[in-house]
Amino acid sequence: MAPKEPLIRRTAVPRRAFVALCLFVLPLAASCASDPLPSWQDGPAKAAVVDFVTRVTDEAGPDFVAPEERIAAFDNDGTLWSEQPLYFQLLFAFDRVAELAPAHPEWQTREPFKSALARDIEGVLATGDAGIGELIAATHAGMTEAEFREIVRGWVATARHPRFGRPFTDLVYQPMLELLEYLRAEGFDTYIASGGGISFMRAWAPEAYGIPPERIIGSSMETRFEPADGTPVLRRLPAQDFVDKGRKPVAINRVVGRRPIAAFGNSDGDLAMLQWTMAGDGPRFALVVRHTDAEREWAYDRTSLVGRLDAALDEALAKGWTVVDMERDWKVVYPFQPP
Amino acid sequence: MAPKEPLIRRTAVPRRAFVALCLFVLPLAASCASDPLPSWQDGPAKAAVVDFVTRVTDEAGPDFVAPEERIAAFDNDGTLWSEQPLYFQLLFAFDRVAELAPAHPEWQTREPFKSALARDIEGVLATGDAGIGELIAATHAGMTEAEFREIVRGWVATARHPRFGRPFTDLVYQPMLELLEYLRAEGFDTYIASGGGISFMRAWAPEAYGIPPERIIGSSMETRFEPADGTPVLRRLPAQDFVDKGRKPVAINRVVGRRPIAAFGNSDGDLAMLQWTMAGDGPRFALVVRHTDAEREWAYDRTSLVGRLDAALDEALAKGWTVVDMERDWKVVYPFQPP
Repeated sequence: MAPKEPLIRRTAVPRRAFVALCLFVLPLAASCASDPLPSWQDGPAKAAVVDFVTRVTDEAGPDFVAPEERIAAFDNDGTLWSEQPLYFQLLFAFDRVAELAPAHPEWQTREPFKSALARDIEGVLATGDAGIGELIAATHAGMTEAEFREIVRGWVATARHPRFGRPFTDLVYQPMLELLEYLRAEGFDTYIASGGGISFMRAWAPEAYGIPPERIIGSSMETRFEPADGTPVLRRLPAQDFVDKGRKPVAINRVVGRRPIAAFGNSDGDLAMLQWTMAGDGPRFALVVRHTDAEREWAYDRTSLVGRLDAALDEALAKGWTVVDMERDWKVVYPFQPP
Repeated sequence: MAPKEPLIRRTAVPRRAFVALCLFVLPLAASCASDPLPSWQDGPAKAAVVDFVTRVTDEAGPDFVAPEERIAAFDNDGTLWSEQPLYFQLLFAFDRVAELAPAHPEWQTREPFKSALARDIEGVLATGDAGIGELIAATHAGMTEAEFREIVRGWVATARHPRFGRPFTDLVYQPMLELLEYLRAEGFDTYIASGGGISFMRAWAPEAYGIPPERIIGSSMETRFEPADGTPVLRRLPAQDFVDKGRKPVAINRVVGRRPIAAFGNSDGDLAMLQWTMAGDGPRFALVVRHTDAEREWAYDRTSLVGRLDAALDEALAKGWTVVDMERDWKVVYPFQPP
C-alpha cells in the first residue's frame, strides 16, 4: 500500500527558520540537528534549494506561493535513481525477454530481441524508438494491470544491478530522498514526470520515494476494460497510449493541470519541462543533476547514449539554473554507501 | 486559484458517531445540527451512504479502509450538475460556433455547424461521434491552454441556461456538494471521471466542487509544447488525444493508479466505472442518480438522447446498488431553490 503524504505538511515555520539559521548564520557549526538535507554539502546548490523553499513558504514575503500551487516535478531516471548502464526499465525488459524467449524461437535471430538476449545495450539502442517500442510491447503487454504489477514487484525483489549486485531500488539517491521529504514537509506536492512507464514505476516508486501512484506521470500502454465474464479487468495492449519522451509539459499539464513552480532533471529529455516551469509567473526553481562521480556512481554528460546532458546543460549554465555536481555537492549518493 | 482539500480531513470520529446517532438512533428528532447531508431526505439512499462511510472509516471494524485507498469517483454531467437540454460543454461549443461563424461562411450550410448555429440539438446529435468531434475540434483548439481557460471562464461568467436563466454553474446539485464535502471530511479523495473535457472542467469545477485540477479526469485535446520564440506555451491541437467515453476505468487507472472504492454516476456511460469499482476487494459502494424530477430538474432515463440510463439501471437494480430517486431523495436540487 502506497503511503500518502504526511499529515503534518503545510506549516513548518520553526523548522524553516532553524534551517535558515543553520545554513546562513552558523555555517561553521559542526552539525545542525534539524538540517533537512544532511546528505548535501553546504554550498551553492543546497543554499539555492533552501533559499527558494524559504521564500515561497514565507507568508509575509513577496514570493509567497499558496500551498496548492507548490508543485514540484522530478524526472526519475538519473534524477531520483541511477540510469546506467541502461534505463532500469529496459534491463527489466531484457529479463522479460530472456524469460519469454523459449516461446519465441524467432527472437534468437530477430532484433531488438537478439541484442536484448545478448544483453547488448548498444545493439538494442541502435534499433531506435521503433525497436524499443517493439521490445516494450513484447514484454509489457498481454497481462492485466494487476498481473503486470506483480511481475514488476517480483523483479524488483529479485533482480540485481550488474555493477552493485543490489536491488535496483537501492540505487536511489539519498540526497534526493531528503529533498522530496523536505519539499513535502514544506507543503509541496511532489510529482514524478518521467519518460518511463507509469505502471512500471507505480509498482515500486511509492515505497521508494513516498510519492503516491496518482502523482506518477509517464508513458503508458493502451489498456482495455474487459468486463466480459466474471471479474472485470484492465488488459494491457501491445500499443503505447502515450509516450512522454520530450513531451513532459504536455503530460504534466494533462495530469496535474497546473504548471510546476520547481522542476528537477538531469538530461536533455527534461529541458522542455525545465523551460516550461521557468516560464511561469512568480518564483521559479530549476535544478539539473550532473553525473560527475565515476567512483560512487557514474560520470557522463554530453555524449552519453543514455541520459545525454548537452543542450539542457548549456541552457542551465546560461540562465543560472541550479546545477548539482554530484561529486562535489553530495556527501552520500546511495543510502547504502557510508558518508 | 483552486482550493485544495481541507486540512482537517483524516479523522472525524466524534462527528461520525454523531451522524450515526442522528440517522439510526434518533430518526424522529426534528433536526440533527451536524447532519453532513442536510439536503438528503432520510431514507435508504442517505442511510446507505452514511453506513458505507461509517464502516470504511471505523478503524476498529472489519471494513476499515486506509485513507490513501479511499478513492471516490464521480461522473460530472447529470451526476454533479445537470445535463439538459444538452451537455453544457456542447452548449458552450454552440456559443463558440456562433462567435466564430463570421470567419466561416461555409458553416451556414455544413453540418454539424449548421445545426449548431440553429441550436438544433437533435440535428447536432444526429451527426454522431464524428460530427461532435468536428464541432469540438473547431471550437476547442488553436489557442493555448491558458487562453482556452480564459475563454471558458468568460463563458461561465456570462452564459445563461436556457430554462433557468442562470449561470450554468448554478445548476450543480446541492446534495452532491454536501456528499463531496462529507466524503472529504472523512478522508476520501474525490475525483471527477467524466466524458467531458478536462480543460473545460478545470476552468470552473475546482471552485464549484472543491475538487482540485489534478483530480479531474476526462477527455482531452492533443497539445503541443511550443518553446519557439519567447515564452513557451501549450498549444491546443484540433485532435482529441483521449476520449473518455465508455472508458472511465481506463482513464481512472491511468491517472489515479488505484481502483476507486466508491463510484457515482447517472447513465450507461458510467456502467464500466461502476462495475470496475464494485469488482475490487473489500467494501465497495456504487450509486446511480435517477432523474425523476421534471418540476425541479428533469425526468428522463431509458430513452433519453442525453444521459440515457438503461443497462446501468438494470444492473443497479439487479445488484442492489444504491439508486437515488431525485424527487424522493433530495430535499433540494439546486442551491438556489428553496427547500
